[in-house]
Amino acid sequence: MSRVYNYSAGPSMLPLPVLEQAAKEMTDYKGTGMSVMEMSHRSPAYDAIIKEAEATFRRVMKVPDNYKVLFLQGGASTQFAAVPLNLMKTGKADYVVSGEFSGKAFKEAKKYGDVKVIATSENTNFDRIPAFNEADVRPDADYLHVCYNNTIFGTHFNTLPDNGQVDLVCDMSSCIMSEPINVSDFAMIYAGAQKNVGPAGLTIVIIREDLLGNARPETPAMLDYKVMADAGSMYNTPPCYAIYIAGLVFKWVEDLGGVEKMHEINKKKADILYKAIEGTKLFHLHAQPDSRSLMNVTFRTDSPEMDKKFVAAAAERGMVSLAGHRKVGGMRASIYNAMPVEGVEKLAAFIKEFDEKGGEI
Amino acid sequence: MSRVYNYSAGPSMLPLPVLEQAAKEMTDYKGTGMSVMEMSHRSPAYDAIIKEAEATFRRVMKVPDNYKVLFLQGGASTQFAAVPLNLMKTGKADYVVSGEFSGKAFKEAKKYGDVKVIATSENTNFDRIPAFNEADVRPDADYLHVCYNNTIFGTHFNTLPDNGQVDLVCDMSSCIMSEPINVSDFAMIYAGAQKNVGPAGLTIVIIREDLLGNARPETPAMLDYKVMADAGSMYNTPPCYAIYIAGLVFKWVEDLGGVEKMHEINKKKADILYKAIEGTKLFHLHAQPDSRSLMNVTFRTDSPEMDKKFVAAAAERGMVSLAGHRKVGGMRASIYNAMPVEGVEKLAAFIKEFDEKGGEI
Repeated sequence: MSRVYNYSAGPSMLPLPVLEQAAKEMTDYKGTGMSVMEMSHRSPAYDAIIKEAEATFRRVMKVPDNYKVLFLQGGASTQFAAVPLNLMKTGKADYVVSGEFSGKAFKEAKKYGDVKVIATSENTNFDRIPAFNEADVRPDADYLHVCYNNTIFGTHFNTLPDNGQVDLVCDMSSCIMSEPINVSDFAMIYAGAQKNVGPAGLTIVIIREDLLGNARPETPAMLDYKVMADAGSMYNTPPCYAIYIAGLVFKWVEDLGGVEKMHEINKKKADILYKAIEGTKLFHLHAQPDSRSLMNVTFRTDSPEMDKKFVAAAAERGMVSLAGHRKVGGMRASIYNAMPVEGVEKLAAFIKEFDEKGGEI
Repeated sequence: MSRVYNYSAGPSMLPLPVLEQAAKEMTDYKGTGMSVMEMSHRSPAYDAIIKEAEATFRRVMKVPDNYKVLFLQGGASTQFAAVPLNLMKTGKADYVVSGEFSGKAFKEAKKYGDVKVIATSENTNFDRIPAFNEADVRPDADYLHVCYNNTIFGTHFNTLPDNGQVDLVCDMSSCIMSEPINVSDFAMIYAGAQKNVGPAGLTIVIIREDLLGNARPETPAMLDYKVMADAGSMYNTPPCYAIYIAGLVFKWVEDLGGVEKMHEINKKKADILYKAIEGTKLFHLHAQPDSRSLMNVTFRTDSPEMDKKFVAAAAERGMVSLAGHRKVGGMRASIYNAMPVEGVEKLAAFIKEFDEKGGEI
C-alpha cells in the first residue's frame, strides 16, 4: 500500500493510526461482535463511544461547563440557517463577509431577518480579513457572525474579532482543533467535521447554554439547538460512525499533546510552506501576510497553464489535490492537523525545484 | 472474531462482505492512496463512487427517469420538516398516524400549515394499519403522508394506501429495498439509511421532478429539494463515506437477485419467526395478522420479568438487541435484509425451547 500526501481542502487527510484502528474494528468492535455502524445508538457500547468522544473533545478544546457540545448532521451549510433560526431573537444580526462561506451564511440569514454586512474584503478577492471594529457592530444586533478561517482564500482571523457587546458566532470548520482558542470568547462555534475532525456528515456545535430555547416557530425540530441539547444529540439517530471516527481523532490530538502542540506543529508546517513560496520567482501568495491561514495556503504562478503543469507534476510525485478553487485559481495546499510535516517538506522542496527549473519539469 | 446476530431496529446489521470490503479499502481505496473518508467529494474517484451508488440504487428500485434520487443528511426526522416546507404549496396536508414516527411527522408539519390526521390506530397502541379510503383524504390537500413500515410497532402497509387524487408521500425508512414497490405510485419516498441501506447519517429521497421548486421562503437551503437536486446532492459536502457504504449495499442487493429475491427471502424469514411465535403458549404477537411487518417482529410474554429473562438469555446465546421499544414492551426482532436466514432460524429455535421449558432456561 502506498499512501499519498493529500492536500484536499475537505474531506481531507485523517491520521493513519485512526484509519488503521477503524479497519481493525470494522467487523467486531471490542468484542461486541458487530461494527460500530451496526450498533444501536441506544446501546451501552455506543453510549460509551459518544460520551467518550464528547469528553475528549471538551478536554482538548477546554470547553467550559456552561457550554453544550452537539454532534449534528448537515454540515456548516445547515448551520447557516440554524444560527439565525435559533439566535435571531430580535431579528437583527451582523456579518463579516471574508470569503465564500461567510457570504453564503449571510445570504441564508437574510431569509430570517435584518442582516447586515459590516465588513467585507470582496473587492480584493478576499485576500485578507477585512478591518472593522466594535463601532461597526450594531449594538442591538443579536450576534456578529464571522468565519474564522476561509478555506478557499487561505485567510484566517489572526486577532479576535471586535464584537463589542453582541454575541460572537463563529464558523471554525477549517481550523477547529488547529490552535488553542478561548471558547468563552464566543457565544457559539460550529464546524463541519471533514477538515480537522473526521468524515463528512458530522457537524460540531459548541453553544453557551443561555442561548438555548429561543428558536423561532418555523424552526425544524432537527435544527433546534435546545431539542438536540436536551436529547444529548440523540433526538434521532446521530451519524454514529462519523462520531466514532471523530472520537478517535480527538484522542489522537490529545495523545499528541493537545491543540497547543498541534498549533506548534501547524505553525512550523505553514512556515515551511510560506517561506518556500516567498523564496521563489515563479510563485505568488494570494493571502496578505497578516491574514494568512495555517491551514490553507493559496498560491499561483502568473500562468494558469503553468499552474496546471505544477498540479499535475506534483500528483505524479504523490502530492495530490493541489488545484486551487476556481474563485482564486492557482494552487491550494490544505495542511490540516493530519498532514505530516514530511508532506509539507516534500511539497516545499518540489516548489523550490519547480521554480529553479523555471517550470521545465 | 465472533459475530453476533444483531436484531437492533437501527442502526442494524450490515452484510458482512460489505464490512469486509470497507475494512480492506480503509487506508487505500483502489490505489488512490487514501481512504474514501479522506477524498475530496469533487474528485474523479469520489464522483465515480456517488454516481455508481445512484445508478445501482435506481436499477434496484426501478426508479423512473422523471424521479430524482437525493442523498441527504439529517435522517427521516429532518424530512418531517422538509416535506411540508417543500410540498405544502396550498398549505394543506393529510397524515395517517400509524405509529411513533408518523406521529412525529404530523406534529412537525403542523408548524407549516393545516394538517389533518385522517386515520390513526393509536387507540389500539398501533397494532395495525388503520383503515381508511380515498374519501377520507381531503381532495385539496397537497399530499397524503404515510409511514410504510412502523419500526416500533412492527406493522406495515400490506396494500397500497388509497390516496385518491392527492400525491402520496411515504416514509420507507424501515422497509426500503426489502420488497418490490412501484415508485410511480408515490410522489415522494424517503428513508433513513440505518436499517436496510447503510450507516446512520444518510437519508435517501426519491422525488418526482415536477414537485421541485416550490419550497416555502423560510426553507433552509439544505432542506430545499430543488437546491439539492440541482447540485446532484452536492450543494455542500455530502456524507461521503455513508454513501460509499450504501453503494456497496446496493450492489450486494443487486448481486443477490434484487429486491424481488430479497422480498422472497424476507417473506421466508418473517414466516419462520411468526409461525414459531404463534406455535408457543408463552408468547403473543403485537401486530394484527393483516398488518404484520416483514422487517420488525414484535412479541411478548404476559410478564415483563419473563420478557427480560428471554432477552438476556438470547444475548448469552449471541442473539442481541431483542428488547422491545418501551411503547410496546416485550421483544422486537428486527430482521432487515442483512439478517441471514440462519439468524432467524436460531431465534425461532430458541423461542421454541424457551416456551417448552416454560421460561425455565
